Amino acid sequence: MEKGEKTKRKVMDAAVSLFNVKGYSGTSVRAIANKAGVNGALISYYFGNKQGLLEQLMIDFLEGYTSIVESNYRQLELVSAKSCLYTVVTELLKYQQKNHHLARFVHREVTLDSTLVRELMMTYLMKEKHFVKALVEAGIKKKEFRQLSCDFVVIQLRALLTMPYSQPQYIREVYHLQPNEDYFVQKYIKHIERWLSEFLYNDVEGSHAPKLNKVVLNN
Amino acid sequence: MEKGEKTKRKVMDAAVSLFNVKGYSGTSVRAIANKAGVNGALISYYFGNKQGLLEQLMIDFLEGYTSIVESNYRQLELVSAKSCLYTVVTELLKYQQKNHHLARFVHREVTLDSTLVRELMMTYLMKEKHFVKALVEAGIKKKEFRQLSCDFVVIQLRALLTMPYSQPQYIREVYHLQPNEDYFVQKYIKHIERWLSEFLYNDVEGSHAPKLNKVVLNN
Repeated sequence: MEKGEKTKRKVMDAAVSLFNVKGYSGTSVRAIANKAGVNGALISYYFGNKQGLLEQLMIDFLEGYTSIVESNYRQLELVSAKSCLYTVVTELLKYQQKNHHLARFVHREVTLDSTLVRELMMTYLMKEKHFVKALVEAGIKKKEFRQLSCDFVVIQLRALLTMPYSQPQYIREVYHLQPNEDYFVQKYIKHIERWLSEFLYNDVEGSHAPKLNKVVLNN
Repeated sequence: MEKGEKTKRKVMDAAVSLFNVKGYSGTSVRAIANKAGVNGALISYYFGNKQGLLEQLMIDFLEGYTSIVESNYRQLELVSAKSCLYTVVTELLKYQQKNHHLARFVHREVTLDSTLVRELMMTYLMKEKHFVKALVEAGIKKKEFRQLSCDFVVIQLRALLTMPYSQPQYIREVYHLQPNEDYFVQKYIKHIERWLSEFLYNDVEGSHAPKLNKVVLNN
């Protein structure tokens, strides 16, 4: 990484960790500069101001998140909808695990009612929903998935995928689970996969036969 | 409502609506007093300071939320685990619908890493989890529910129940659904109930028979 990139990264990491403790408004540019060990003028140079830094952080995270959904959706001609959805689930969890401090911050920030949030929603969250929904619809069309209300399935999936990373402290203190550990991610993927297979997947494609294989799975 | 209570309520409503737009740190006591149309000194009189007001708001909401879970759990000797869980789901959604501004604020605030949040977690969120988990375990023991990892079921249920009220703007702008309307709540309850019946409930109690009734439901 070149020096400028390194400094930017240090500032962004420091900002996220302070925002997670004191909130965005409760954190000054000076505090960020101190924590990052850089001169405050560099923050203005790279990000303009605190708002610019906030935008950069949110765009970075949402860009990466959305592109996982989009790039996998583009593979849908080559793979089954089930396997495509499985990859999306796995990659989104690992992406959030890898960027867990940032994920926590962005997931909280999008609950605010600001102009920036409305813009990001129109750009990234609409796009993300569009591709997840298109993936679910493709699965229904291929008879891999059941006929369900797509919106609610997408909402439920998003709630599940973001919960451990928007509320890591809750997961840690109340359940003694560690969302940023591999062990957690493995178990959580299994849980989501089980939910999807019971709830969304058609066991016997296009058939109305009794779901005998499901019974074996459950007992 | 007596006059003091009315003033307190006005201040709390004004605070929540400002916090949801500008965040806690971004909102001054003066702005709250202005919006509520009361003298700033009354805020000190009733709540001490802004932190006291924050605590009161969070305790109020979490107290009501947790007591729904606890009081229903106490009925478990009289009703089935399924019907108990159904009542909990319905009441928690209606409670959040009724207090949707406050719900949004509290759900965001508990994602911060502060001393207050840690204390509230130990008091309310631990208790809430305790009773929901005990309810799920009771259902498993009675063979009404399947043997699943209780923690993940409780986490998934919480994610589902809180999602529309922690992120109402996302639900509104991306899906064009209105979480504070009765219509939404009715449909959402049906979705959750369907998820529970596919994923958690044992269709044929204590039997390994094929789930024929499930097939009828899906087709």
